[in-house]
Amino acid sequence: MSVTTMNAKDILMRAVQCDQVGRILEAQNLYQDGIQILMDLVADEKDVGKKKVYYERIKEYIDRAEQIKERVQKHVIRGELVTNIPIEDNSTGNSYQALFGDYLNADVKEVLLEEPYLQEKYHFQNLVTFLELLVKNCRHIKYVRLVTKTDPKAPENQRNVLEQIKSDMARRNVTLSVKFEDTLHDRKIVLSNGYIIKIGRGLHFFKATNPLYSLGLCDYDFRKCLQTDVDIWRTKNFIA
Amino acid sequence: MSVTTMNAKDILMRAVQCDQVGRILEAQNLYQDGIQILMDLVADEKDVGKKKVYYERIKEYIDRAEQIKERVQKHVIRGELVTNIPIEDNSTGNSYQALFGDYLNADVKEVLLEEPYLQEKYHFQNLVTFLELLVKNCRHIKYVRLVTKTDPKAPENQRNVLEQIKSDMARRNVTLSVKFEDTLHDRKIVLSNGYIIKIGRGLHFFKATNPLYSLGLCDYDFRKCLQTDVDIWRTKNFIA
Repeated sequence: MSVTTMNAKDILMRAVQCDQVGRILEAQNLYQDGIQILMDLVADEKDVGKKKVYYERIKEYIDRAEQIKERVQKHVIRGELVTNIPIEDNSTGNSYQALFGDYLNADVKEVLLEEPYLQEKYHFQNLVTFLELLVKNCRHIKYVRLVTKTDPKAPENQRNVLEQIKSDMARRNVTLSVKFEDTLHDRKIVLSNGYIIKIGRGLHFFKATNPLYSLGLCDYDFRKCLQTDVDIWRTKNFIA
Repeated sequence: MSVTTMNAKDILMRAVQCDQVGRILEAQNLYQDGIQILMDLVADEKDVGKKKVYYERIKEYIDRAEQIKERVQKHVIRGELVTNIPIEDNSTGNSYQALFGDYLNADVKEVLLEEPYLQEKYHFQNLVTFLELLVKNCRHIKYVRLVTKTDPKAPENQRNVLEQIKSDMARRNVTLSVKFEDTLHDRKIVLSNGYIIKIGRGLHFFKATNPLYSLGLCDYDFRKCLQTDVDIWRTKNFIA
């Protein structure tokens, strides 16, 4: 058995394990990785019988990955509005903790974060601030899927910074998986405990401190904000 | 009555008011400012009778300012150790909030902060982080006296940054008064509710995040620390 086959087997076993304990975003990711490796193997395989076995397994995993995709989509579509928080221009007291910290609790195992813009320094700083809160509040967090757009000006720098953040999260036993989708527009944060946070401006609604050394440099509750809306939705959780 | 006399009168009236409600650090500062103006006036005064009246008032205010100085000194000297927190090299979970946030409460009206080193960017950032916590936790805070050393390399920049922070605090109705004492060595934070926080390294015991975009960029609980000791003392409060 080749190294690649071993890898595919390991990956798909981990996928099934994640699936069973309800870590479905991570499972979906692993299914997709496993499927990709099996597809490469089947192309190289001469034996028709073995080819058939591969195809059956590929189909099985594709079906499962599709089911998860649908379940997540349904989860996002259905649901009821829990609260709407309008943020006024120049208002303060709107840190991530103040706005939605209570929904980030011990029940959250996985998070899907769709944030189109991760290109400027302050974008990355906002991402780190969000992840700090996530790691602090959600003690069972295992997996974060981040979907964003490629930075057309400095794609290399963007990849490097996201790689660094990924390594840092890995040291804390959280898998951060980054996907690039250049047609992405909407912003949302989907929590595996059933809450969905939609912010018109995504993570980026804080104004810079001016002058630099003012209250708000570290504690975002003191930062003035741009006008935006925060909608918090509740659906049945992923596992239901 | 000249503008200066008016100023002296106003300042000394405010000093007495602060003194009466127990805001003695602010009172001490105002007495000293008022005394300085009276000293200038007495030098210009020709009338011997008026000179005598000025001298009597000056003596009275000097005595009061000295009494306050002694009281604060006694407050700092006497007292019992409440707790000792050793910070290990590379340990985390040592944000100002985690270490001594509970002592910063609604009873704190005044703070004396002796921090010799306020020269580098991260020094100013630590100061702002400390002030954010102070303003957030101590809803009756009115006055902060900061004692520090002049930056021999960039005194202009240091003054500018501290002026900016002072203006920002003034907008939040907190007077930040900055005194330069170039022989200062020890670090301490004296709270008017009777607690004194002594940290071997003062405010500066956090290592930089490495790489930059890692957890700890904003939330100092994730920052690795330098080895230092935190001693927390308790004395009778200023007003007692």
